[in-house]
Amino acid sequence: MTGPRYTRLAETLPSDVPFVGPEVQERRMGRPFRARLGANESVFGPSPKAIEALHAAAPDVWMYADATSHALKQALAAEMGARPENIVIGGGIDGLLGNLVRLLVEPGDPVVTSKGAYPTFNYHVTGFGGMLHKVPFRDDREDLPALIDRARETRAKLIYLSNPDNPMGSWYAGREIEAALDTLPEGTLLLLDEAYIEFAPEGTAPRIDPDDPRVIRMRTFSKARGMAGLRVGYATGAPALIRAFDKVRDHFGMTRPAQAAALAALQDAGWLAQVQDAVAASRDRIGRIGRAHGLTPLPSATNFVALDCGGDGAHAKAVLDALVARGVFVRMPFEAPQNRCIRVSCGRPADLDVFEEVLPLALADVKAAAAG
Amino acid sequence: MTGPRYTRLAETLPSDVPFVGPEVQERRMGRPFRARLGANESVFGPSPKAIEALHAAAPDVWMYADATSHALKQALAAEMGARPENIVIGGGIDGLLGNLVRLLVEPGDPVVTSKGAYPTFNYHVTGFGGMLHKVPFRDDREDLPALIDRARETRAKLIYLSNPDNPMGSWYAGREIEAALDTLPEGTLLLLDEAYIEFAPEGTAPRIDPDDPRVIRMRTFSKARGMAGLRVGYATGAPALIRAFDKVRDHFGMTRPAQAAALAALQDAGWLAQVQDAVAASRDRIGRIGRAHGLTPLPSATNFVALDCGGDGAHAKAVLDALVARGVFVRMPFEAPQNRCIRVSCGRPADLDVFEEVLPLALADVKAAAAG
Repeated sequence: MTGPRYTRLAETLPSDVPFVGPEVQERRMGRPFRARLGANESVFGPSPKAIEALHAAAPDVWMYADATSHALKQALAAEMGARPENIVIGGGIDGLLGNLVRLLVEPGDPVVTSKGAYPTFNYHVTGFGGMLHKVPFRDDREDLPALIDRARETRAKLIYLSNPDNPMGSWYAGREIEAALDTLPEGTLLLLDEAYIEFAPEGTAPRIDPDDPRVIRMRTFSKARGMAGLRVGYATGAPALIRAFDKVRDHFGMTRPAQAAALAALQDAGWLAQVQDAVAASRDRIGRIGRAHGLTPLPSATNFVALDCGGDGAHAKAVLDALVARGVFVRMPFEAPQNRCIRVSCGRPADLDVFEEVLPLALADVKAAAAG
Repeated sequence: MTGPRYTRLAETLPSDVPFVGPEVQERRMGRPFRARLGANESVFGPSPKAIEALHAAAPDVWMYADATSHALKQALAAEMGARPENIVIGGGIDGLLGNLVRLLVEPGDPVVTSKGAYPTFNYHVTGFGGMLHKVPFRDDREDLPALIDRARETRAKLIYLSNPDNPMGSWYAGREIEAALDTLPEGTLLLLDEAYIEFAPEGTAPRIDPDDPRVIRMRTFSKARGMAGLRVGYATGAPALIRAFDKVRDHFGMTRPAQAAALAALQDAGWLAQVQDAVAASRDRIGRIGRAHGLTPLPSATNFVALDCGGDGAHAKAVLDALVARGVFVRMPFEAPQNRCIRVSCGRPADLDVFEEVLPLALADVKAAAAG
């Protein structure tokens, strides 16, 4: 008895997980983290109106959700200055990335991203056999002109740009992206990942006609809206591209409570403003805590701060491991030179109290190990 | 400015939706259905324990869910007499079907199913460029020996079999499937869709070693567990095949409330038994209502009944349209000769009261239209 016959592509793929989640680490350690500051979740939670909507939706989960997400699309169209035809809803940006890559990328097709940018995008490109071309960050920022040049050289079908950027927290002004659009090679789609846009300064979001066929922008309810565990993302783009998602998406794949909660969250601008304020205050405090112990915070337009540990990747990894061992869940960039930093998500005052308590102990652990 | 360059495969795919949902129909009609009996949902709802779990999970949705679904896999392993390594959790059977087809099927690869079996499976096979070979139903049942013969002739990578079957409600005894396994061609995987298994007579589920590399079985919380709107399905199979899902699945794609609710539902055997009883009673009553008006109910091992309208597909479609126009959401098989039937999902007494009231009116509408 033999097993199934996989595709040639599937045979080549690793059974990798892009990220190891905090629950897996907690089971390995045998105890829970004291502060969960590693996944850029919003510890501040969702709008109370979204939580109400979840409670209200609980008895209705026997029904499949509306496969067209009609009500949510209407609300997002208003939010984005677009029409419902410009919008597709999916299982977080991750799910939408998978759909988009499947629509565009076949084995050998070139795709451009930054070295050290979002690994789940790379996972999807590799998963469909695409050829990734990686451009180094410049001054801790994704290098937009170089990405476009590389796309021209390689005839890439797709460029990935996150603005603001994960894992460094850097950003472009919207007008710089608007100007760059006119330098895009013909037939290259710019994928603009705006997962963190709600935390960025005014003017960071470019003004782009939603019907512009050169760009697709993706946003999420996982970050500022505090609903990572509900998997709601959305993309805006030209109607022909948006319609194409219907060729490959899992039409009945959205959960009913998630759609209800997203709709309710959109109607609570006050909560969003509170979270934005709390995140700004938290960023400042993470910076102060880092500086107090010799780390250098990078400017951030997101809900996390990259702290330069002042050494190489191995040093930052030692700091990270020491923090994790002492119960603080944080992550760090994968690639040099960004991996001289650790990445700390914003938290409530109590979470940052733990970070403030543990950081000097972790740094002392690292120093002792180096001396020992 | 041109749009993006799609894959050659994506260019050939239709922007089709496998099913038009009831909400879309309600918006077209401008009013809600009086009875929702078309999607084989469980009108009886989920276990009260699952609803409690949803309420308890609401404040935690800011966290990504455990990407390994550790707790749920442990519980399902116990339920299935398997190990966690035999189990993968996904976004309903629909999501798992997409993953499995992606792992096995590349353009031109042969796949065998029944003419008129689950359209979403076909959607995925077509979506990855597979070549569908369709075997007719025999006596209103999927024809297992003929499916296996066809797989041998075509060297198919995959056979789809639902047991019990949708849309007819028919079934094989488990021992017949066990015997058929030994006639499977080498290198053909049997995909056993057991979405409705909890409604079937004792002995319908075959006894299969979870490590058997010739079979993958899929089950869901959407039917007997009453959680269609939460998107939780699972597959059991040999560890190598199960691990392969990690190459392509959306690792953080499950929602947190859904995992919590599924875990709670598994612990409520009493609720499941109640639903099974209610479904059995409802099936009987749908049969009686049909017979009282000249329709012939087919035996069913599911939570729906196919009612033979005594004519051809056009006649059954006229009956269906008349029911829908009068506020009863039902569906029907797509292919002849099964499309002589309408398919009515089980419901609460109040839902079936509506069906009982409306059916004779709908049949009169059809008669009047034929006479007019």
